[in-house]
Amino acid sequence: MKLWDKGISIDKKIEQFTVGNDRDIDLHIAKYDVQASLAHAKMLKSIGILSDEELQQLDNGLNELGAQIKNGTFTIEDQFEDVHSKIEFELTKTLGEVGKKIHTARSRNDQVLVALQLYYKENLFQVNAKVKTLFDTLLKLAEMYKDKLLPGYTHLQVAMPSSFGLWFSAYAEVLIDDVYMLQAVSKIVDQNPLGSAAGYGSSFPIDREFTTKELGFSTLKYNVVAAQLGRGKNERAIASALGGLCNTLGRFAMDICLYMSQNFGFISFPDALTTGSSIMPHKKNPDVFELIRGKCNKIQALHTEMLLVTNNLPSGYHRDFQLLKENIINAFEDVKDILDIFNYAIQQVIVKDIDLNDEKYQYLFTVDSINNLVVEGLSFREAYQHIGAQVQAGTYQPETNKQHTHIGSMGNLCLKEITNKFPE
Amino acid sequence: MKLWDKGISIDKKIEQFTVGNDRDIDLHIAKYDVQASLAHAKMLKSIGILSDEELQQLDNGLNELGAQIKNGTFTIEDQFEDVHSKIEFELTKTLGEVGKKIHTARSRNDQVLVALQLYYKENLFQVNAKVKTLFDTLLKLAEMYKDKLLPGYTHLQVAMPSSFGLWFSAYAEVLIDDVYMLQAVSKIVDQNPLGSAAGYGSSFPIDREFTTKELGFSTLKYNVVAAQLGRGKNERAIASALGGLCNTLGRFAMDICLYMSQNFGFISFPDALTTGSSIMPHKKNPDVFELIRGKCNKIQALHTEMLLVTNNLPSGYHRDFQLLKENIINAFEDVKDILDIFNYAIQQVIVKDIDLNDEKYQYLFTVDSINNLVVEGLSFREAYQHIGAQVQAGTYQPETNKQHTHIGSMGNLCLKEITNKFPE
Amino acid sequence: MKLWDKGISIDKKIEQFTVGNDRDIDLHIAKYDVQASLAHAKMLKSIGILSDEELQQLDNGLNELGAQIKNGTFTIEDQFEDVHSKIEFELTKTLGEVGKKIHTARSRNDQVLVALQLYYKENLFQVNAKVKTLFDTLLKLAEMYKDKLLPGYTHLQVAMPSSFGLWFSAYAEVLIDDVYMLQAVSKIVDQNPLGSAAGYGSSFPIDREFTTKELGFSTLKYNVVAAQLGRGKNERAIASALGGLCNTLGRFAMDICLYMSQNFGFISFPDALTTGSSIMPHKKNPDVFELIRGKCNKIQALHTEMLLVTNNLPSGYHRDFQLLKENIINAFEDVKDILDIFNYAIQQVIVKDIDLNDEKYQYLFTVDSINNLVVEGLSFREAYQHIGAQVQAGTYQPETNKQHTHIGSMGNLCLKEITNKFPE
Amino acid sequence: MKLWDKGISIDKKIEQFTVGNDRDIDLHIAKYDVQASLAHAKMLKSIGILSDEELQQLDNGLNELGAQIKNGTFTIEDQFEDVHSKIEFELTKTLGEVGKKIHTARSRNDQVLVALQLYYKENLFQVNAKVKTLFDTLLKLAEMYKDKLLPGYTHLQVAMPSSFGLWFSAYAEVLIDDVYMLQAVSKIVDQNPLGSAAGYGSSFPIDREFTTKELGFSTLKYNVVAAQLGRGKNERAIASALGGLCNTLGRFAMDICLYMSQNFGFISFPDALTTGSSIMPHKKNPDVFELIRGKCNKIQALHTEMLLVTNNLPSGYHRDFQLLKENIINAFEDVKDILDIFNYAIQQVIVKDIDLNDEKYQYLFTVDSINNLVVEGLSFREAYQHIGAQVQAGTYQPETNKQHTHIGSMGNLCLKEITNKFPE
Repeated sequence: MKLWDKGISIDKKIEQFTVGNDRDIDLHIAKYDVQASLAHAKMLKSIGILSDEELQQLDNGLNELGAQIKNGTFTIEDQFEDVHSKIEFELTKTLGEVGKKIHTARSRNDQVLVALQLYYKENLFQVNAKVKTLFDTLLKLAEMYKDKLLPGYTHLQVAMPSSFGLWFSAYAEVLIDDVYMLQAVSKIVDQNPLGSAAGYGSSFPIDREFTTKELGFSTLKYNVVAAQLGRGKNERAIASALGGLCNTLGRFAMDICLYMSQNFGFISFPDALTTGSSIMPHKKNPDVFELIRGKCNKIQALHTEMLLVTNNLPSGYHRDFQLLKENIINAFEDVKDILDIFNYAIQQVIVKDIDLNDEKYQYLFTVDSINNLVVEGLSFREAYQHIGAQVQAGTYQPETNKQHTHIGSMGNLCLKEITNKFPE
Repeated sequence: MKLWDKGISIDKKIEQFTVGNDRDIDLHIAKYDVQASLAHAKMLKSIGILSDEELQQLDNGLNELGAQIKNGTFTIEDQFEDVHSKIEFELTKTLGEVGKKIHTARSRNDQVLVALQLYYKENLFQVNAKVKTLFDTLLKLAEMYKDKLLPGYTHLQVAMPSSFGLWFSAYAEVLIDDVYMLQAVSKIVDQNPLGSAAGYGSSFPIDREFTTKELGFSTLKYNVVAAQLGRGKNERAIASALGGLCNTLGRFAMDICLYMSQNFGFISFPDALTTGSSIMPHKKNPDVFELIRGKCNKIQALHTEMLLVTNNLPSGYHRDFQLLKENIINAFEDVKDILDIFNYAIQQVIVKDIDLNDEKYQYLFTVDSINNLVVEGLSFREAYQHIGAQVQAGTYQPETNKQHTHIGSMGNLCLKEITNKFPE
Repeated sequence: MKLWDKGISIDKKIEQFTVGNDRDIDLHIAKYDVQASLAHAKMLKSIGILSDEELQQLDNGLNELGAQIKNGTFTIEDQFEDVHSKIEFELTKTLGEVGKKIHTARSRNDQVLVALQLYYKENLFQVNAKVKTLFDTLLKLAEMYKDKLLPGYTHLQVAMPSSFGLWFSAYAEVLIDDVYMLQAVSKIVDQNPLGSAAGYGSSFPIDREFTTKELGFSTLKYNVVAAQLGRGKNERAIASALGGLCNTLGRFAMDICLYMSQNFGFISFPDALTTGSSIMPHKKNPDVFELIRGKCNKIQALHTEMLLVTNNLPSGYHRDFQLLKENIINAFEDVKDILDIFNYAIQQVIVKDIDLNDEKYQYLFTVDSINNLVVEGLSFREAYQHIGAQVQAGTYQPETNKQHTHIGSMGNLCLKEITNKFPE
Repeated sequence: MKLWDKGISIDKKIEQFTVGNDRDIDLHIAKYDVQASLAHAKMLKSIGILSDEELQQLDNGLNELGAQIKNGTFTIEDQFEDVHSKIEFELTKTLGEVGKKIHTARSRNDQVLVALQLYYKENLFQVNAKVKTLFDTLLKLAEMYKDKLLPGYTHLQVAMPSSFGLWFSAYAEVLIDDVYMLQAVSKIVDQNPLGSAAGYGSSFPIDREFTTKELGFSTLKYNVVAAQLGRGKNERAIASALGGLCNTLGRFAMDICLYMSQNFGFISFPDALTTGSSIMPHKKNPDVFELIRGKCNKIQALHTEMLLVTNNLPSGYHRDFQLLKENIINAFEDVKDILDIFNYAIQQVIVKDIDLNDEKYQYLFTVDSINNLVVEGLSFREAYQHIGAQVQAGTYQPETNKQHTHIGSMGNLCLKEITNKFPE
């Protein structure tokens, strides 16, 4: 066949095109394919398609592969298009006839789907745990800095007094919203799709409740067509929930970058967490947080990718779905890194003393002044006009002694209540 | 001041630019502003800022406005920039001094936020109820047509036998996943933000638990900064959840449009539900389902809009957030319409008889044939090759008598189990 | 037929659902439908399908409608689903038999398409002109403030000296890139689709070059199927180009909002261009620029909407395409407003004096200091380490006398060259 | 320092996090960094910062590295964070003092930017050339199959007669629109940013016109701040233009997948271009075209990613920008593959004979029948009603003899005119 540019044959090029990065990406799901294959084999034995001995052989073969995966010696060579064909090949090579039986009553479609869902389920669990770690860190920081004042802004204009306690615990409480979404997605992927085969089930009397229990799924996706509609739908939901979390982290990182600017000067970090410049020797740039922000934004873009690949496609499997897993798996790995690094770095934040008597902050306290007048008997609108006139005339004198005491205000952070809100 | 093109003064143009469509959009949240204002007033009375009599006056004034809103006589004239200034104006006009007190200890920011969250909460409830109605309809159709066969496709190629029962109930079961997401979002918006004021709370000793209970919120967003971070975050979550639902409905609509094509001919609809052409007199186009698909796709795009407006913005209110509500409110209205119309239209579907003996469907049954050989003792891979050779040689004879009996297969739809899965 | 909730009949509800906002939106394209209908009529006459007299009648009827559109008395009543049926109805009502002939050899599909493309073409032209106005304003401001220094930032950290001249003219030069894209899109929509009918042409011997010339299109979309593929493709291209422009304007608005913050304090605007707060009497918020930024972000999201509505749809018209026009037309109207208001507001910018001797700006000049050492003979890397050591030791003394003279630097803005780059 | 999970130290983990995949990705831009570094060195010599001999040394060193890059022996080891530090290190290692001078009067920022723009420019050129190849192929196929009829669809309903000639050449003509966009983007990246340094220029009297000419840029981005605003803006424009092309190819691939379905049966491909199933031995799936469609959709999603990373960020470099290049470079590589494979595969299409007398296609000719009545003297609306009544009554007889002769219709494809439209 005619040669391509760069000396790659067209066959090779088409093969690369169709396989993509699956050999790399599939390493993330290899252990789940082993796990699901074993559950499938046990079920086949339970309905009489495999003998005790055949199951034992497959059990041995799969455990051997599982051990290779665990210790990092498992590889997917170029002759295999994905992890699933590699595993079936190994079983057949090692076990002979029995290996040819493992694919009975399943299809590549439900095999991939169940492995992905097991991967998703475990990774959502891990992400959740790491969010909890960061949540705890932030509440600890809030407690530590609860008395440190910070100017509060609206429209990026100096507005009213805030505090580091409020700031840290605000992001903690918002993380709870992200967990609500993560937990909803966990429910979506916690439904066994195995047994849906190519999307239309099987004429074998398979026992789907057996594999559901064996694999630890809470329930099963009953309808086999519905199971296949999960391709893309699972990923869309994951992209949305990870994106929500990244939205929180990305905006937090933006605050951090801004507060590190000399023009704010509210916080800094040890040199080890900042980066220099190739030409400016004075620079201590917040690269880690900029990269957190940037990576969070990339992950937020995944929702669009998941949609574009699947929308307007009729039901039933399409090969396009193969392309969904790469960036979702990468996103899981990135999100876990982001959470680890955020948690590590934020603990080293250096909170600075901010002089709220600085001229630029003088109007932080106008609302408190209005409130004092209201307490003295003016209606709110009258008091507002009164203080407004002072500001206009340049005669306003800040009253900085006012305490904020209500629930959730800087004088009453309710850290315990927020801690208790974190979902189980 | 100099006149603009089209004879509009620059002031007028800037005013239009900043107000946007708020006067129209805000009609959707007017009743919630009345409700929240009343709760706020009751709380102000409870902490001694309003007297019994003042509260009574405000109660009367707000109830009068509520009645106008209910009967459709409430309007927002051009001199008001939004519903909130209109309501405060009316109260002050009618009640005098007392009207000037209603804004004590709150800000436009938490006032808008609480009204939006009440609107979101109620509309999520309504959407949920309408999803349940459609879910029930689909299960009814699945039961009705459970014995009607349908070719199943993968890669748009004829694959294996399916059924209308499977098809209808597949979309029903997938709707459950969408409800998981809707419920998570309901939890997010079901946290009282009132009392966060401009985003940094108040020096008044307001009782935020009072308003939380009064307004029927399950809990409150404690941290006042966190409450304001909800602007954009609420809308992102809603866009994601409504988008997930629309993803299901849009793909279902695609199936319907495809199945109505003469080349499939699986279903049709009464003439009243189809539309003609301006030049082709024979046309009966599935416009309703195409518009459902298109509108569902537009709603899926909202997630990107919500992200772009808010990402990379530091914490604290920005006026940009005003722009979030319009398309989210429109999306709620559209989604409710889509669900009503989908439910109405799908009940009128005409399911056709499909001749699976037609030549183009002859290979639907190859997997069943393989399975017969497996039952006779061949390994799956051998049986696969055996039938594959028959297909290649043109000697394959379909065996159409095979029953599918496992859970979730076309012979065992588990409609009751699916019904029971629908979350409370 | 059974009544819906809210007392709306299902028929009414479906009608609203399918018509959407077309009656409002179509007012934007009414004049183009008249224009294209007249060109079509003239062509029909030229090939003998209409007589001279019939053309004269249609000419009169269309001109009468055109006059109504111009003076604002043209309306689309509820009995018409869009502007096209309204116009055909009016012609038939007024002219009788001749009105029934206007739709000969065309379809609603190419009728809508040609009207939209004429609208797009003119609006792209208008946007281009308004970009040029803003471009000129920015260059004028750059010239005016070319000697005013401004700290330059990287990573939001103080980096090197910049100037207002650089800042204003940077955005001017970037607008040129946006114009390249706008012009490419103009070429795309400047191809006559009329004559493609429903997407497969006509058996009448229509003269498509006649209408191309009559309507002032530069060329025609020859292939009739290609013409219909323009639905969605035109809108995607427009969304991309308007989005590119909005990307520039949105980031500029972000700079403005940041520079107005008290923590930067680089610029301000007259009170008339700022907005107050409902509770903080000191506030002068940059609402206009925040809304510019927010609206620019919404417009940038349109690209995703256009994609989602059309991707994965097979060729040939789908009713979904009707939904593309609303937000694109709104975007054109918004972009024109944004450009007008930006141009109006930026001229009123108050550029402040910035004290670069302030401690926080002390390291702005380290690179200049390094360069001095390089001129004295050190290699760049050695000089970098030398100055770095001074910064570390706290002994660094800024040298603020260095001139920047190269092309495009703050001492040599090349405003004339940038002016000349603006495409014709 | 405490160990991380998986035994990776936190330092290592942060390093991985900040470096990302740059070592791999940067191989794509290595040759352009060499090219730009050499141009920079020549310029430094021209203004007296380097001596003749020093330039000669750098010339040798850079050429040696260029040779390694060309023959594939160039590597970026783990101790280097990117290609730029590797190259500077190699020069310093080999050449000593001279190597330390190469970074004089430039910054990593403009160094990366110019290398990327050179890569983009060349790759846009290559994409353009491959589009032309596919364009030519499609026109050849259109000519070959110009007489083969194909049912035309609107709303996925049988509409009017079309042809393979129309279908192939439609996508060819649409590619021209994509080229307009690609060419606009080429103009955007064809402006030399070198000399903008960290985004604020240099105090050295560098000669930016020298490097502009040396590197073959058509012009330069004069303003140094504007040059840096290109980060993200270049990538957004590229994502938009590649996305436009992918929109065309993706929809074409959708047509192909649909037309290969047994329910259409319009085309097929040789077995070598189709793929089997793991359980259905009869399957010949159009995987190549599904993967083209899916990859095209992923590339269309990049626009959102580019936006999210950069929008709402103030001007000046941010480290987030480092994240832009990976997926854009991958997209270029993918698009080139897609074009090669599409061009290879489509040439092997097997066009089938379609029996338009089949009952399902009987109404394809109603518009032609109407037109016959119009020619006989009826007005269009009367003729429409006449044929409509026949269809309703079941008495309609297709008239299949009608010729379509106008420009761009199936009888007059204008392939030469379309060929001539392709931009230089």
